[in-house]
Amino acid sequence: MSTKDELLKYLKESDGVWASGESLAAALMISRSAVWKHIKALQEEGYGIESSSKRGYALRNLPDRLLPAEIREGLETVCFGREKIEYYAETDSTNLRARALAHEGAPEGTIVVAETQTQGRGRRGRTWFSPPGCGIYVSVILRPRVQPHEAPQLTLLTAVAMAETLLERADLPFAIKWPNDILVGGKKISGILTEMALEMDRVDYVVVGLGLNVNTPAEAMAEEIREIATSLRMLTGKIFSRVEILRAFLAKLEHYYALFQDRQFERIRNRWKELSGIIGKQVKIEGLDRAYEGEVVDLDRDGFLILRTSDGAFERIVAGDVLYR
Amino acid sequence: MSTKDELLKYLKESDGVWASGESLAAALMISRSAVWKHIKALQEEGYGIESSSKRGYALRNLPDRLLPAEIREGLETVCFGREKIEYYAETDSTNLRARALAHEGAPEGTIVVAETQTQGRGRRGRTWFSPPGCGIYVSVILRPRVQPHEAPQLTLLTAVAMAETLLERADLPFAIKWPNDILVGGKKISGILTEMALEMDRVDYVVVGLGLNVNTPAEAMAEEIREIATSLRMLTGKIFSRVEILRAFLAKLEHYYALFQDRQFERIRNRWKELSGIIGKQVKIEGLDRAYEGEVVDLDRDGFLILRTSDGAFERIVAGDVLYR
Repeated sequence: MSTKDELLKYLKESDGVWASGESLAAALMISRSAVWKHIKALQEEGYGIESSSKRGYALRNLPDRLLPAEIREGLETVCFGREKIEYYAETDSTNLRARALAHEGAPEGTIVVAETQTQGRGRRGRTWFSPPGCGIYVSVILRPRVQPHEAPQLTLLTAVAMAETLLERADLPFAIKWPNDILVGGKKISGILTEMALEMDRVDYVVVGLGLNVNTPAEAMAEEIREIATSLRMLTGKIFSRVEILRAFLAKLEHYYALFQDRQFERIRNRWKELSGIIGKQVKIEGLDRAYEGEVVDLDRDGFLILRTSDGAFERIVAGDVLYR
Repeated sequence: MSTKDELLKYLKESDGVWASGESLAAALMISRSAVWKHIKALQEEGYGIESSSKRGYALRNLPDRLLPAEIREGLETVCFGREKIEYYAETDSTNLRARALAHEGAPEGTIVVAETQTQGRGRRGRTWFSPPGCGIYVSVILRPRVQPHEAPQLTLLTAVAMAETLLERADLPFAIKWPNDILVGGKKISGILTEMALEMDRVDYVVVGLGLNVNTPAEAMAEEIREIATSLRMLTGKIFSRVEILRAFLAKLEHYYALFQDRQFERIRNRWKELSGIIGKQVKIEGLDRAYEGEVVDLDRDGFLILRTSDGAFERIVAGDVLYR
C-alpha cells in the first residue's frame, strides 16, 4: 500500500473526526509537508477532504470514481484487481490498454478501468458509448490454461457474471443476448468484448472487456442510442455506486473463472442458458454472409448457437446478430 | 523509393563500371556531399562500394544481408513485403516485433526480418537457435477475412509454402512434421510459430513467423542442437543466397494465402498431407496431458490429427509432439 493510500485509510478510519497533520505525519513516519502533499493529491482525485490549520484534516465525502484504492477496499477476490489496477480518467479503450499491458507481460487479474473512453469499442468494430463518470468500462487480463478453441467460452462466462451482478441489484428482467450483450426489455445495458492472443496450441492472454451503463441519464444519450440502450438509472430512477457494482462483478467473474479453469464449463453453460432464455425461442439471425430463421435448440460447448430451421435442418451459428421474432 | 535506394539501383545498373560522384549527384538531383553521405550509409550496411576521388564509385559486391532493398529486388509478390519491411541486424524476436506493429495497425503483408534473434522462439515457449547471418528469421502480418477457428490453418499453409520452397532448392527428403516443423532425415531445418489476435467472431491479425537454417555451419551448433537440427549448408556443403530463398518463400506464401482467402483450404490441406507423409504412419504422440499411440488416418479441416488407436478408437489430437515409431 502506498503512503497516500495509507493516509487515505487513516482518514476513512477517523470517520469524519479531525486528524491533526502532526499525528498523521507521526503515524506515517513522514514530514507534515509530505502529509500536505498527499492531501492535495487526494483532493485532486476528488476526495472531499476539509483542512484546518488548527484541527488538521477530515474526510467529508468520497469521490464517485473508480479509483484503485476505492475498488480494492472490500474487494472479495483473491487475484482479480489485487496486483495491478490501471486507472484512467480518460483513455481510448480499456481493452486496447489491457492488450498493451498483456503484451508486455502483465499478470493474470490485471485490471484497466476508465471514467470515459474516447474509442469505446463493441464487437466487430462497433463503438460503445462511454460518457464520463456514468458507466463502468473495465477490462481484465486472463491467462487461462486451456486450449485456444476453448478461449471464446470466456465471453459466455463474463456474461453470466455480469447478468448475476445486475440481478442482485435490481428486480428487472435482465437477459443475456447471444453472444455478448445484456438486455432489459429489448434494450442494451451491458456489452462484452473478448479479445485474445493465441498460438496454435497455447493461449497467451485473453482480455475480457465490459461496458455497463450505470448512472447514465436519458438526456446524455442521443435519441438513436436511447432507442436501443438503457442504464440502471433510467430503469430505476436511482443512482448506484459504480465501485460497489464493479467489486461485485469482479468477485463473480473470479468465481466463474475458477470453475472454468477447473474444467467445469458445463455448469457455466447451463447457467448461461437459464439467463439467456433463448433456448426454445424462434429467432432470426443475421449471420456473416446469410440470414437464418428457426428455433434455438441449444448453445453448444464451443459457445455456438444450434438452430433448427423450419425444414427440420440443424444449423450451427458461429457469429451473427439475433433478432427475436 | 528512397534516394539511397535509387543511388544503389544506379550503382547496380553500372554493373561494376565506375560512376562519377558528379553524374550520380546530377541524376539524383542532390549535392555531391549528399551522394557521399549515402555511399557511407550503404557501405555501413555491408555493400562493397569502392571509391576513388578521380573515378567516383563502383559496386564490387553485395552484402549477405536480408536488407529491404535486396528483398524487394525481383520480389514476385503483389502485397507481401511491398509496403513495409522492417529490418533488424539484431532483435529479440521477429514475431514479437511483428505483433507490436500489427497492434499499432500495420497493414497485411508487413514483414519483419532479422539477421539474429536474441529471444528466437518456437512453439510453446521453446527457443529457436538464431545465429547471426546464417538463417532466415522472418515474420509476416496477415489480416485474413476468416472466422477465428479457421486461423490456425495458416500454420499448415506456411509449412506447405516453406516445404515447397526447400524442395525447389535441394533434392532432399524435406517433410512437414505436424504441426509446424520441417525436417530432413529426422532433423529440424525449419520451424513455424503462428500467433494471432482474435475477437470471438473476428480475426484482428495473425503473425506467421518462420525460422530456417540456411548457411549455419555445423560448428556453430552446440552438440545437443546438432543432434536434432540441421541446415541447408550442412546437408549440401553449399552456401545459399538467403535473400533468394526468402523471396521465393514470400511468393509461395502469398500464392497459398490467396487460395486460403478464396475458401480453397482443401487444396492446401491435401498438399500438406502429401508433403507430410504422415498419413498411414504409426506414431506416438505426447499430448498435453497424456500420450497417444496409433495410426494417423487424417488431418482434419481444423488442422487436428485424427488417430486410430490399436483398439480401433478414433482420437482427435489438438496439440502435441509426434514421435514416429
